[in-house]
Amino acid sequence: MNPLYQDLKTQCFQANKQLPELGLVLFTFGNVSVADRNLGVFAIKPSGVPYEALRAIDMVLVDFDGQLVEGALRPSSDTKTHAVLYKHWEQIGAVVHTHSTYATAWAQTQLDIPILGTTHADHLTVDVPCAPPMAADMIAGDYERETGFQILQEFERRGLDYREVEMILVGNHAPFTWGKTAGKAVYNSAVLEEIARMAYLSVTIRPNVPRLKEALIQKHYLRKHGKDAYYGQ
Amino acid sequence: MNPLYQDLKTQCFQANKQLPELGLVLFTFGNVSVADRNLGVFAIKPSGVPYEALRAIDMVLVDFDGQLVEGALRPSSDTKTHAVLYKHWEQIGAVVHTHSTYATAWAQTQLDIPILGTTHADHLTVDVPCAPPMAADMIAGDYERETGFQILQEFERRGLDYREVEMILVGNHAPFTWGKTAGKAVYNSAVLEEIARMAYLSVTIRPNVPRLKEALIQKHYLRKHGKDAYYGQ
Amino acid sequence: MNPLYQDLKTQCFQANKQLPELGLVLFTFGNVSVADRNLGVFAIKPSGVPYEALRAIDMVLVDFDGQLVEGALRPSSDTKTHAVLYKHWEQIGAVVHTHSTYATAWAQTQLDIPILGTTHADHLTVDVPCAPPMAADMIAGDYERETGFQILQEFERRGLDYREVEMILVGNHAPFTWGKTAGKAVYNSAVLEEIARMAYLSVTIRPNVPRLKEALIQKHYLRKHGKDAYYGQ
Amino acid sequence: MNPLYQDLKTQCFQANKQLPELGLVLFTFGNVSVADRNLGVFAIKPSGVPYEALRAIDMVLVDFDGQLVEGALRPSSDTKTHAVLYKHWEQIGAVVHTHSTYATAWAQTQLDIPILGTTHADHLTVDVPCAPPMAADMIAGDYERETGFQILQEFERRGLDYREVEMILVGNHAPFTWGKTAGKAVYNSAVLEEIARMAYLSVTIRPNVPRLKEALIQKHYLRKHGKDAYYGQ
Repeated sequence: MNPLYQDLKTQCFQANKQLPELGLVLFTFGNVSVADRNLGVFAIKPSGVPYEALRAIDMVLVDFDGQLVEGALRPSSDTKTHAVLYKHWEQIGAVVHTHSTYATAWAQTQLDIPILGTTHADHLTVDVPCAPPMAADMIAGDYERETGFQILQEFERRGLDYREVEMILVGNHAPFTWGKTAGKAVYNSAVLEEIARMAYLSVTIRPNVPRLKEALIQKHYLRKHGKDAYYGQ
Repeated sequence: MNPLYQDLKTQCFQANKQLPELGLVLFTFGNVSVADRNLGVFAIKPSGVPYEALRAIDMVLVDFDGQLVEGALRPSSDTKTHAVLYKHWEQIGAVVHTHSTYATAWAQTQLDIPILGTTHADHLTVDVPCAPPMAADMIAGDYERETGFQILQEFERRGLDYREVEMILVGNHAPFTWGKTAGKAVYNSAVLEEIARMAYLSVTIRPNVPRLKEALIQKHYLRKHGKDAYYGQ
Repeated sequence: MNPLYQDLKTQCFQANKQLPELGLVLFTFGNVSVADRNLGVFAIKPSGVPYEALRAIDMVLVDFDGQLVEGALRPSSDTKTHAVLYKHWEQIGAVVHTHSTYATAWAQTQLDIPILGTTHADHLTVDVPCAPPMAADMIAGDYERETGFQILQEFERRGLDYREVEMILVGNHAPFTWGKTAGKAVYNSAVLEEIARMAYLSVTIRPNVPRLKEALIQKHYLRKHGKDAYYGQ
Repeated sequence: MNPLYQDLKTQCFQANKQLPELGLVLFTFGNVSVADRNLGVFAIKPSGVPYEALRAIDMVLVDFDGQLVEGALRPSSDTKTHAVLYKHWEQIGAVVHTHSTYATAWAQTQLDIPILGTTHADHLTVDVPCAPPMAADMIAGDYERETGFQILQEFERRGLDYREVEMILVGNHAPFTWGKTAGKAVYNSAVLEEIARMAYLSVTIRPNVPRLKEALIQKHYLRKHGKDAYYGQ
């Protein structure tokens, strides 16, 4: 094992362990990867290994083309999706995929999660985008790689910036989130699940609930982001 | 006590203890059995014994006709249903019955759980079948044995293979799952509960939510099953 | 303190402690009483004392007319309701009142909880009755005593037997359950909450879900009750 | 550090720690402040500090105009809202802000939480008020300060007394609660969340569920409040 990768594996291991602690995964339904941009690789959870049996040395190293660099185990079956995101979005340092209950239920509806309150606006200024289910030829092709392109294309189509909107639902599948660090990417998965849950409750109380007004969206986002942010230390 | 059965009892005991740990049972509302095909018997939870008081030596041994082989306690009242499944489905090694909340709520509606996402398709390629409530003469007859036949007939009627679809809802009653091993059968019960929960949320957000497209169903199922599977180690 | 009552107080204390363990109460929103028919008294939780601070010696002794027999603290504000039930229903040994979430939500709708599945039929053969909200003069009178009469009258009006149906919702208020023993009465509160939750899910999936067929109702009830019961040891 | 403030900081710290214990906050989405009327200051949680890393000495002291009195860290971004409430409502000793799931989902609908049962009436005699989303000029101005005025004006507009109604939803945002003590203010946040959850369930079972009748509202409130209260010790 290359000692260069030890720290990256440890970071990746610890971030993966957070998923069950935050109630975001059942069994093995999720994975976190963490990249080292200088080394040009990312560490990712091995496929199908239960979280309670996971060890830091089990993390698999892969490059941004999805080629195996080091590891005794097979990497997550979603590895190529992670690779595509790292390759094209140069400022992300970690990617998280879960099947968390409420976010996945929204993905199954093929609907965006509407922005209904400041909890949402504290994190992003738009509805949580839901990419349409993939076309038959993309599914039949290199599926996991195409899933990455489905995400990229949806951001392009909507004119979204991945540095501002750090989450997406893949229609009929489940959420992906990312961030500069592993901590932020995992945080985004937990926030997304809570936003999805609150929106679920609001739309089942009041099906035609109005979207949050633009002034509140901008105000809350700018409290936490940008040069005039005044949230936190 | 026959020492031949000791290992089977331990397996059965441990599988039963997983049900409350996974949040799948309240009080005594569930049971797991585990079969030994060579010995022609299965071990099953005794009837009405609280999980916290359960001991491995309390497991009851029964043959595939539902006749008591060994045990100081009365076996689960659902024993004959388990026996019918073992007798007719020769490749199953364990059966689980629970009244887990979301799966049971679907059974109460007499509706199949529609396949809406890849979480579902990772495990089976069809809606989770809900057998109709039993006919009056079946209920008045040997009820638990007839419940087994209700399940068998529903699979036959739909042309399903019990080796591919390892779960069913019995209408107005609750779910049964099975598998080659105790671990797989219990896993199936937990997966079913989560699928049921996600589908509940999706249909209450969007009542006419479309079914998952066939290309995605096949893709996700074949990622995990069959000769070209590439999920796991 | 009369040593005669020590055992009764301990039973009552332990039964009360089960409520938060089973997730049936928030703060002090619930109470259990346990009767000794020979002594003609029941022990009940003191009013407004947090469960975590409760001690066995704090239980208050009251007779079946609701008169204080022994105790340093004021008994539960619902004491007279309990007294009326003990006085008129001679075979009950314990009463439980909670504001458990799903059962209380049903009480708020003023609707019976419809019998939709065997989980329900395993415990009672009818819809869980919801007594109408009390009349203005009953509310203005001896309110807690009248709550007891509201329950008795609803059972009479419907021709129900309190030995077979051990639970009721008081409209716009919350559930009461009872049983021969403290264990059974608390068990009934937990079962009611789960039945209420499953029915909630079923009616929100399918608003006009049909009621369970009579043959299944009778079959499941008689598996667990009466001279031909074959559930349990 | 001024030793005068030590006790206040400890109270504030302990009250803040209760929020995650009661399941009312995710990450840092909430804050408690506690006032000392004699000293003319309140202690409040620092902004964006995770609950698990919080220490009593981190609490920040602020006066009723929202000016920093003592503290190494930046106070909660909601500090000015707290200050406005303390300044105008002279009998409150603590304020709590959370984004608890059900209460926030109601705030997102811009609807009051209707009074449907005695659990609600035990605590207040009116629907839980939802203030409308703020006007654009208030948002663009001194936002957090204006949030305080939005709350004050809604109470004035409805003729409510803050000593009787100790909670409000700010439309599209989230709940605020208060009380004479930190314990009562935190208790009110937990009660509000449970009331919001029960009302959610009731209105999704029965969309046009009738409001609680006035006689029951008054009866239950007066059991717990006012000179003839007989709940508790």
